[in-house]
Formats: sequence, structure tokens, C-alpha cells
Amino acid sequence: MNYPNGQKKQINQQNKSVKTNNNIFSNRGMSLEEDINTTNTYYLETDIAIIHKKPTPVQIVKVNYPRRSAAMITEGYFKQASTTDYNGLYRHRYIDFEAKETKNKTLFPLANIHDHQIRHMEKIVKHGGISFIIIRFAAYDETYFIPAEKLFPHWHDKLNGGRKSISYEKIKEEGHIIPFHYQARVNYIKIIDRLYFH
Amino acid sequence: MNYPNGQKKQINQQNKSVKTNNNIFSNRGMSLEEDINTTNTYYLETDIAIIHKKPTPVQIVKVNYPRRSAAMITEGYFKQASTTDYNGLYRHRYIDFEAKETKNKTLFPLANIHDHQIRHMEKIVKHGGISFIIIRFAAYDETYFIPAEKLFPHWHDKLNGGRKSISYEKIKEEGHIIPFHYQARVNYIKIIDRLYFH
Repeated sequence: MNYPNGQKKQINQQNKSVKTNNNIFSNRGMSLEEDINTTNTYYLETDIAIIHKKPTPVQIVKVNYPRRSAAMITEGYFKQASTTDYNGLYRHRYIDFEAKETKNKTLFPLANIHDHQIRHMEKIVKHGGISFIIIRFAAYDETYFIPAEKLFPHWHDKLNGGRKSISYEKIKEEGHIIPFHYQARVNYIKIIDRLYFH
Repeated sequence: MNYPNGQKKQINQQNKSVKTNNNIFSNRGMSLEEDINTTNTYYLETDIAIIHKKPTPVQIVKVNYPRRSAAMITEGYFKQASTTDYNGLYRHRYIDFEAKETKNKTLFPLANIHDHQIRHMEKIVKHGGISFIIIRFAAYDETYFIPAEKLFPHWHDKLNGGRKSISYEKIKEEGHIIPFHYQARVNYIKIIDRLYFH
């Protein structure tokens, strides 16, 4: 990590403050989902974009209606999402993406994405939306923006018996590292600006 | 209801077939939500538009993980949605709407819509999305498309101490009746085409 004004050296000499500073200025300790939620709240409150996470789909089987209190779900099951996790609106464009975190240091396993999600993303692109996937390599604390158009060939390669993952090197090459911002912790709008609005 | 070729008279003479025909060709018996879901499935399968209903938001409190079977939610509560129920993509445009059914014959009570939903719709319009509300008057089996821009003045009127509903007559005047189609039972895309793409 590069600090301005030779601050790195100074911090290295004060062991305790290193950790504190890291916790403030890096992503460590927060999950990708938490970071994206924080980012979307920031975009919403500053009127930059309107992006929401879709609720987790639940199949509700039994509901109790106790008197004078809220209805309680007593039997429910998680359902598989039929689309991606996030969608919304930015600068008149429809935005649609999925986010995945991996502990793997050398590759991103394609099993993390479902076939129907890819089909959904293909439709979005065809109909003029902006679609992408956000991948975090937790080991490096690096988060990448992969346009859907770059993801599809890997997916079809896999379907045709090719490799079942995308190498870390390939992601560095075809993806775009997402800058960190204090309030927009995964500041993906910067990449959208560069790729789709320049 | 008007049938072509004087079919109405013929049906009136055959009492039993009237009901059958009504069930096939009208909305009666299906809820607005079911009709919109059927419509969205049709749009999706025929590659017209990509519109999904968001899952019901559930606050999950307790989950059981029995061996060899799926995780079961044993305590959960319904949360209030922070946005509208439906969104998606059509002809490069972001689409966002809410749907409400009323049994009232003379007015639509504004209490059916929440303040944060209106604020969400205002943001959508400001950022270049297409937003509207679908209102069904069950008593007349009539379904109306009200552009968000037409809804906002009624809402702000209510906030300023004005009337707490929109009259049926006003909805007929400011809204657009949504045509019925065998597979797209609430064929709202027709209205979008006319209002936003002509």
C-alpha cells in the first residue's frame, strides 16, 4: 500500500497504529456484501445512483399469527435466486450485477455462478443494460469488476468441456480493479463511468 | 364486454358457456399479482422485456440445519419493502413499478402506497427511469396504468392536508386502461410503448 508523504515509513515504526490505520483505510474485516451495501447506501444518499440488493428469496410454508403481535414465519426454506443479487439505475442506464468473494489465491471457480444467472446476464446485455460481476480475492484484499461480456466466453468454454475456473492472472488482465473510497468502499461506479460513459 | 361478430348474444343464450368463456378471456378469478407474474413470464419467454417481482423481504431470526436436509427457517418476520415490487429492463430503459388492487368502487386510497415507495419512484424518474403504478378496480375488472408523474401531485396534495385518495373518475382521466392479452394478462408494455417510445 502506498501512503503519501512517506507516511508508510512512519507507520511501520509504530506497530500498534499500523493495524488501526489498516482497519480504517482498507476493506479488511468487512465482507464484500457489507461493503457493497455500504457503497449503495452512499450512492443513494448522495443521489449518485439507485442500486438495491434484492431480498433473499424465501419459500414461506407456515406462518403463525399470534394475537397483538407481528405474523411469525415458523417454517421457511431458502430458494435459489433466479437472477442476480443487485440491480438498479444509474445515469439513465439499467444496472445489474452479481458479487462473489473467494478465498482462492490463484483462480475464481466458475461453480460460484449459476447457469440461470449467466442466462439472465446475457438477456440484460442484449436488451441494453449494463451487467457485470464483482469478484473479491480475499487473500489479496483486491476487488475486480468483470464486464459480463468478458465473463460469457469463459462460461461457454466451461460448458464445452474447457476449464472450470478463471485464473487470477486472467482476471487481472480482463477485469478492472475497483478503487476503495472511504464511504463507497467498493466504488464500482468509477469503473462504469470509465467503461460505459467516456 | 364487447365480443366481435355478435358473439355476446350467442353466449348470453348459453348460460353455462358464459362462465367458461369469462374465465378464459377475462381477469376474473386471478389476483393482480398472479396476472402480472404471468405477464412477466410471457415477456421473458418471448424476449420482449426482463421484468421480475422482487422477493418478499424476510428478516430471518432462527435457522435449523437438520442433517441431510435443507436449512429450515424456524423464526422469521415480514419486513416492509423499501422500494417497489417490480423492476427490470425494456428497450434499454429501466422499468420500476408497484401494483395495487382495490375493492373500492369509487376511489383508490393513497394509504395503499408508502411514503418511502413514493420517494423511491421520485428518484427513479429523476435518474431517467420509467416508473408507474398499476391499479386494479376489482369491482369493474379494470386495470389502469398511472405514470408516476401523475401520482406525485396527489401524494403531495395528501401530505399538505388534501384528500387521502384518488377518485375513480380521476384515474380514468389521468391513467390508461391496460389491455388484456391472453398470455400477457396485464399487457402494460403496450402503454409503455405508447407513452415513452412513440
